[in-house]
Amino acid sequence: MLDAALTRQLRSIVGDKHFRDDQEARVAHSYDGTPMLQALPDGVIYPETTEQVSRIMTALAAHRVPVVSRGSGSNLCGGTVPVQGGVVMVMHRMNRILEVDLENLTATVQPGLITASFIAHIEALGLFYPPDPSSMKISTIGGNIAECSGGLRGLKYGTTKDYVIGLEAVLANGEIIRTGGKLMKDVAGYDLTKLLVGSEGTLAIVTEATLKLVPPPASKKTMLAMYKDLYGAARTVSRIIENKIIPATLEIMDNPTIRVVDDFAGLGLPRDMAAILLIEQDGDAETVERDIARIREICEFERADRIEVAESREQAEKLLTARRSAFTALARLRPTTILEDATVPRSRIADMVLRIDEIARKYGVSIATFGHAGDGNLHPTATTDARDADEVHRVEQAFEEIFEAAIALGGTITGEHGVGLVKAPFLEWKVGSAGIEVMRGIKRAFDPDNLLNPGKMFAKETRKRVVIERG
Amino acid sequence: MLDAALTRQLRSIVGDKHFRDDQEARVAHSYDGTPMLQALPDGVIYPETTEQVSRIMTALAAHRVPVVSRGSGSNLCGGTVPVQGGVVMVMHRMNRILEVDLENLTATVQPGLITASFIAHIEALGLFYPPDPSSMKISTIGGNIAECSGGLRGLKYGTTKDYVIGLEAVLANGEIIRTGGKLMKDVAGYDLTKLLVGSEGTLAIVTEATLKLVPPPASKKTMLAMYKDLYGAARTVSRIIENKIIPATLEIMDNPTIRVVDDFAGLGLPRDMAAILLIEQDGDAETVERDIARIREICEFERADRIEVAESREQAEKLLTARRSAFTALARLRPTTILEDATVPRSRIADMVLRIDEIARKYGVSIATFGHAGDGNLHPTATTDARDADEVHRVEQAFEEIFEAAIALGGTITGEHGVGLVKAPFLEWKVGSAGIEVMRGIKRAFDPDNLLNPGKMFAKETRKRVVIERG
Repeated sequence: MLDAALTRQLRSIVGDKHFRDDQEARVAHSYDGTPMLQALPDGVIYPETTEQVSRIMTALAAHRVPVVSRGSGSNLCGGTVPVQGGVVMVMHRMNRILEVDLENLTATVQPGLITASFIAHIEALGLFYPPDPSSMKISTIGGNIAECSGGLRGLKYGTTKDYVIGLEAVLANGEIIRTGGKLMKDVAGYDLTKLLVGSEGTLAIVTEATLKLVPPPASKKTMLAMYKDLYGAARTVSRIIENKIIPATLEIMDNPTIRVVDDFAGLGLPRDMAAILLIEQDGDAETVERDIARIREICEFERADRIEVAESREQAEKLLTARRSAFTALARLRPTTILEDATVPRSRIADMVLRIDEIARKYGVSIATFGHAGDGNLHPTATTDARDADEVHRVEQAFEEIFEAAIALGGTITGEHGVGLVKAPFLEWKVGSAGIEVMRGIKRAFDPDNLLNPGKMFAKETRKRVVIERG
Repeated sequence: MLDAALTRQLRSIVGDKHFRDDQEARVAHSYDGTPMLQALPDGVIYPETTEQVSRIMTALAAHRVPVVSRGSGSNLCGGTVPVQGGVVMVMHRMNRILEVDLENLTATVQPGLITASFIAHIEALGLFYPPDPSSMKISTIGGNIAECSGGLRGLKYGTTKDYVIGLEAVLANGEIIRTGGKLMKDVAGYDLTKLLVGSEGTLAIVTEATLKLVPPPASKKTMLAMYKDLYGAARTVSRIIENKIIPATLEIMDNPTIRVVDDFAGLGLPRDMAAILLIEQDGDAETVERDIARIREICEFERADRIEVAESREQAEKLLTARRSAFTALARLRPTTILEDATVPRSRIADMVLRIDEIARKYGVSIATFGHAGDGNLHPTATTDARDADEVHRVEQAFEEIFEAAIALGGTITGEHGVGLVKAPFLEWKVGSAGIEVMRGIKRAFDPDNLLNPGKMFAKETRKRVVIERG
């Protein structure tokens, strides 16, 4: 429960309508896109300006009340579950595109802007903003920044981090900082911009972002290649890169995914294939034609069983359906779907897919794998039932072993979803105890009283993937 | 003077030959590429392995002795001048390419490797590592990482930061951390990799780096465009970008630079031009042809007085001579050359060039400007004489006003040279007092006893651009 004086203060900052502590608002902001996690906040606040955010932070700091800033809460790491109560700050009212600067190819936006709306706006101007997380129809730019969201175009175009060049942010004590700018080069001090991207709301509250835009590719081509041998698919991925072609998209689906997708979408996919690659290249028409022709040769050389190259946009859309249906198809199998993002060097994806398979069998759980083969970012996806405690426990054990396997292959516990609550107990596996200590020091430098999204990134006794009950 | 016990310990770690405290070694490591700065270290150490670096740091930490790690010391911000004495750690013995991974398109190298040797090795393998600081024939990869070096290809390809994806580094207490990896995506905790790049040796000592490589462009084309009107040149820069062409290189030389270069190289440049643009595009042959044709049209539209497009590699080399001679030509005018790197949004370069001119006239000093127009990173270069205290003072005043002007135009005090000693008194102008406080907090988190390159980045009473005498 929030102190009555604080509640009055918060209401006076944003107006009565934009602070809520009724049960409905609290329950609605007690969970996010991550299954099986819930914790009630004490209040929910909806600021409209940076100045309001600053005043809110000053008030919360004075009362030592924690705050979880969030957009749509579509993250998959429990990043916005308010495990220590306090206030959830929803950024949706700060959703304006403040400027698109055509001379400098930058856009300055507020954090609550929906990613897909931003992309639509930018594309209508004939420009391109590449980060495309699957959640983009609902996710916000601020959420993308908090999690450093990736997407299907990461291999060629990078992730959110590569496009954020300036930030305005409010610190835990209410002070406002500005980092970077409309600058392609800036080495004035430590790079706070890149540090804040991916910091999961634990260091500061982003209130404005300047994003780099790029010229859009003139054309695009899409193809599918299907393999009876998983290693043939994996070798194709490596060989494309070795041939110095960086495709715009290079996705893989394993056999369990193929079968589920075929059941769901009735695409007539060959159900005996070990893997399907979805490959797209974009750029100038000549380059695209040549690259796709060379990729086709590589697929043939690696004994792809079937290759389909789309000759029209409609056909391309059809080929994309299989990959796009993967999550939906898996999600309808069982009540609970857990999508992970263990990532390995791209040369190790076949090893990783096979290890995932082995581990799933060992624990008697059902895990299908698809994901971004080109950048080694796989999505092993377990279908289970939250009500079956025993099975959920086995799924957790399987994922622990999957994270271990990823690290053993030179990979990481999370490629694009973030640490949040879910990966916190595993962070040390990747960064080591000295790494954790350094990160905790950075956290203390920004937020000495641990008010910004406390309980995330650094594990204490957080139980994972279980419903957390608060009074 | 170092404690005798510590000296014995350091000698036992690296061997007698690789620790020196004679006057010759100390003087040789008392300065760097920055004019008018000098301070004697107490000793110089040359480690060969990460383990040695770790043991050295443990020993220095126990004795509270500062350390400045360096490569070739070609930086221009006083970044490696040991202003608080202690030990200079020279990384030149750790200069191996540990691996080039063709499947993952990564290279893992030691920090003492010369940038140009690395690039030559990579290009011989048919690959591409874009960061190309002008110092690359002598600078090291470790130095590039410390300063986040840029270069002529920054506009299209980014800077050092964009290519460092994993690091091994030794902390102030001797502990070894590993960040990132051969991973295109990794969001496990705060991004220590990008934080260490550009941290100027103040947070940790980098002992190994994993670098991202990219496919090389198939072809390249070079052109010059000369303008009587500076704004015509500047509008050309903006219009090229607005036309969604990102050239590989887009450089500008102002009138003072043109005249000096012409005196020096006898290229027959038209001495009445306000500006010359050097433009290069690379990529697939068709794309390059089309882009260069469009750029030519834009130059004509903006009333370029003369346009030369190189039809052969030899001709291209000739066109490149003017820009490449700029620094050398300026440096021979007077005994002391001070090269700065104020940076503005690229739409503001004409305003900035004119402001620089105005300021130089105001203080009665000689400043010529050239630089990376495409990314707004200008190099106003003063030619002066260190022995003329009055003139040097006026040059300093002029640069102070230039930094102020850059910030007023939405720019920064340093685009690619770093803060070091020289920009430390101005850092707050860019990042604000709250920004400085956060950065100091990060520094304390890594290095609580302030042993790593102390006196850099954060100003105390550091006098700038004067010879510092130590006992």
